Amino acid sequence: MRYGVVGFSGRMGREVIEVFSERGHELVLKVDLEQEQYLGKPDVIVDFSNPSALKRTVKLCEENSAGLVIGTTGLNEKDLEIIKDLSKKVPVVQSFNFSIGIQIMLRIVSEISRILEDWDVEIVEIHHRFKKDAPSGTALLLKKALNKDVPIHSLRIGGVPGDHTVNFANLGEILSISHRAISRRTFALGALKAAEFILRKEPGFYEFPKIVFGGV
Amino acid sequence: MRYGVVGFSGRMGREVIEVFSERGHELVLKVDLEQEQYLGKPDVIVDFSNPSALKRTVKLCEENSAGLVIGTTGLNEKDLEIIKDLSKKVPVVQSFNFSIGIQIMLRIVSEISRILEDWDVEIVEIHHRFKKDAPSGTALLLKKALNKDVPIHSLRIGGVPGDHTVNFANLGEILSISHRAISRRTFALGALKAAEFILRKEPGFYEFPKIVFGGV
Amino acid sequence: MRYGVVGFSGRMGREVIEVFSERGHELVLKVDLEQEQYLGKPDVIVDFSNPSALKRTVKLCEENSAGLVIGTTGLNEKDLEIIKDLSKKVPVVQSFNFSIGIQIMLRIVSEISRILEDWDVEIVEIHHRFKKDAPSGTALLLKKALNKDVPIHSLRIGGVPGDHTVNFANLGEILSISHRAISRRTFALGALKAAEFILRKEPGFYEFPKIVFGGV
Amino acid sequence: MRYGVVGFSGRMGREVIEVFSERGHELVLKVDLEQEQYLGKPDVIVDFSNPSALKRTVKLCEENSAGLVIGTTGLNEKDLEIIKDLSKKVPVVQSFNFSIGIQIMLRIVSEISRILEDWDVEIVEIHHRFKKDAPSGTALLLKKALNKDVPIHSLRIGGVPGDHTVNFANLGEILSISHRAISRRTFALGALKAAEFILRKEPGFYEFPKIVFGGV
Repeated sequence: MRYGVVGFSGRMGREVIEVFSERGHELVLKVDLEQEQYLGKPDVIVDFSNPSALKRTVKLCEENSAGLVIGTTGLNEKDLEIIKDLSKKVPVVQSFNFSIGIQIMLRIVSEISRILEDWDVEIVEIHHRFKKDAPSGTALLLKKALNKDVPIHSLRIGGVPGDHTVNFANLGEILSISHRAISRRTFALGALKAAEFILRKEPGFYEFPKIVFGGV
Repeated sequence: MRYGVVGFSGRMGREVIEVFSERGHELVLKVDLEQEQYLGKPDVIVDFSNPSALKRTVKLCEENSAGLVIGTTGLNEKDLEIIKDLSKKVPVVQSFNFSIGIQIMLRIVSEISRILEDWDVEIVEIHHRFKKDAPSGTALLLKKALNKDVPIHSLRIGGVPGDHTVNFANLGEILSISHRAISRRTFALGALKAAEFILRKEPGFYEFPKIVFGGV
Repeated sequence: MRYGVVGFSGRMGREVIEVFSERGHELVLKVDLEQEQYLGKPDVIVDFSNPSALKRTVKLCEENSAGLVIGTTGLNEKDLEIIKDLSKKVPVVQSFNFSIGIQIMLRIVSEISRILEDWDVEIVEIHHRFKKDAPSGTALLLKKALNKDVPIHSLRIGGVPGDHTVNFANLGEILSISHRAISRRTFALGALKAAEFILRKEPGFYEFPKIVFGGV
Repeated sequence: MRYGVVGFSGRMGREVIEVFSERGHELVLKVDLEQEQYLGKPDVIVDFSNPSALKRTVKLCEENSAGLVIGTTGLNEKDLEIIKDLSKKVPVVQSFNFSIGIQIMLRIVSEISRILEDWDVEIVEIHHRFKKDAPSGTALLLKKALNKDVPIHSLRIGGVPGDHTVNFANLGEILSISHRAISRRTFALGALKAAEFILRKEPGFYEFPKIVFGGV
């Protein structure tokens, strides 16, 4: 695949380039606040930068008929509409969480919650001391997936990138589902999966969870 | 429900009685190697004793048109045939593992393994020092559910009733499914679920996993 | 050792008898609310019953010149004074927590807290759904041992006998100390250690932590 | 503190600079295979590069009367002798593991092993799939600290930087000591502690564990 990266010099941008290169894909477009290097027509453009870059990213996709994988956080309703509009012309994947493991976790805790409706459930999440919001956005997604009002315990210690555990228990046993993010690489790998999925797909808006679960 | 217990004075028998009574069911038949107390016609008979009791249990089910929930371990092929025969006359549930959590775990690790086929997977199980077989039977069931040849690490320490963990990992994240048995109560609760399920069902052989997953 | 048990028919009493018998000690005195069986002069008497039994226990120790191991909870100041008085005549061990692992945990978290004074610390404890107090008494002991005001997260799920974890973290690493109680056996084993320790010791009040740490 | 870094452009070198700068220390000497930038006389030089750089590092320390903190792996006996010789002229700290948490873990598992000599002990360690040696060097250090021949279980999955757990168990309880490395930052923080310790100290060879435990 020939791909472009918007925000190529940022932390996520560099991670994306490392992961895509290891897989043998070719970087042909590097965009930054200060520069743009165009080495060829990209099949897919990846953007994990910030909302202010959106217009330029969309324009680049249109000009190159390139698919878009966008993981930028902080997009508002209007931004999302712009992305939906773009998806009429090219294939697009947008998600606020490109971790494959978290998508699977959301799905299985939802399933288990339906089956074990009378078990006790509590969530524990651990993040680094600089994270100000508690509970984490992912913990709230888990709670929503459980479809139950369950306690969430938030630890803020050291440099933990992000642990989430859902404990289901009855009087005789405990079943726990745990996820641990090791690094930003997690999200770059999710972007890779999305980019490879939309390559040569028809224009349209593709849900990341569906890509993870093989279109099921 | 009116129920009977074969092996009522053994450890599992007592656990079954405690769990069924808490739920408001009525004990009307107590059978043991040395005695039999008949206080009324049972709807369901529960047997977690041992293979030598099987014939008597089957006879009691036939005479009372009672369903059977049997968790006896060490049954051989011939024993299982006898049970299948009985299931033409009354509803029957037979399983070597009545833990609800383990049934769910088997199902979800199988699902995840299919989705994350290129992730690394390893199993860790911990049991008390007296357990002679390694890996545990449950670890082998997990491996089979994964449909992959994965390493199993077996710890034999102290008095641990039984922990099982399946770790799925790629370069950026780890997803772990863990189960911990707390006591025999686990299995009594599974038997309760099975007994309530077959109450007033047609004769037949009902799979425990199907009961756990609501007939799905 | 020849030993006696006050409250021999209760849950802890039966556990004590099982553990002491396995070790080859001889049960010569069984006391209960309703009965007393005297088969010989005990070297040590074990009491995990309740405060109302204290006077009788003390009298039995005096009459037999037997040491006392007492793990009764809910003793008040006056009760403790009575026990101190007894310790002038026979060797005595009194503790509200006879778990050896918890004593060690208290000691090491205190040590670590002194060394890692600028690390973040948070405690997580998990108990069964019937436990009404939160945080647990043991979590409060841990906090005291840390000599720091740290957050305690209390989960109340299923039938968990008691898990306690202290997490120490800085930006690059996490060090966790975890304890899991498996059963009442824990406390019976602690009582055994105490009983064997005071056998043939001079009268006096012996601290359980000192016994665990070999008199250090 | 004014400090120098040998191998400043490598991964550990960059981590050291980040950590020391955050603390307000001033980088005055940057050395690399290809360049050397000298902006002032350093108090301490940090070297996490490789054995081939050793001679140059030693010469720089001598010329500047600068202390040395060296975490280079793969040093041989002769290299260590050169370092010992240097310690007659300047203060030196050399260690193969600058993680503070691991040093503490080694010390406490050694203590616990002495107290709980009849408990079962097993080690579990998890590292990324690229790590070829098993068990890990740290697991072997833990085994040595336990002073017992205990089983070590080595998982090699995904991108795990390094988890180590020592489980102590008897029939009623489990006490576990776990360490998780989050990133190279761990080791940079240990180097910082060492550098601040030897600042203005007399020439000599200082043991890293002693620095961690406050000279005890």
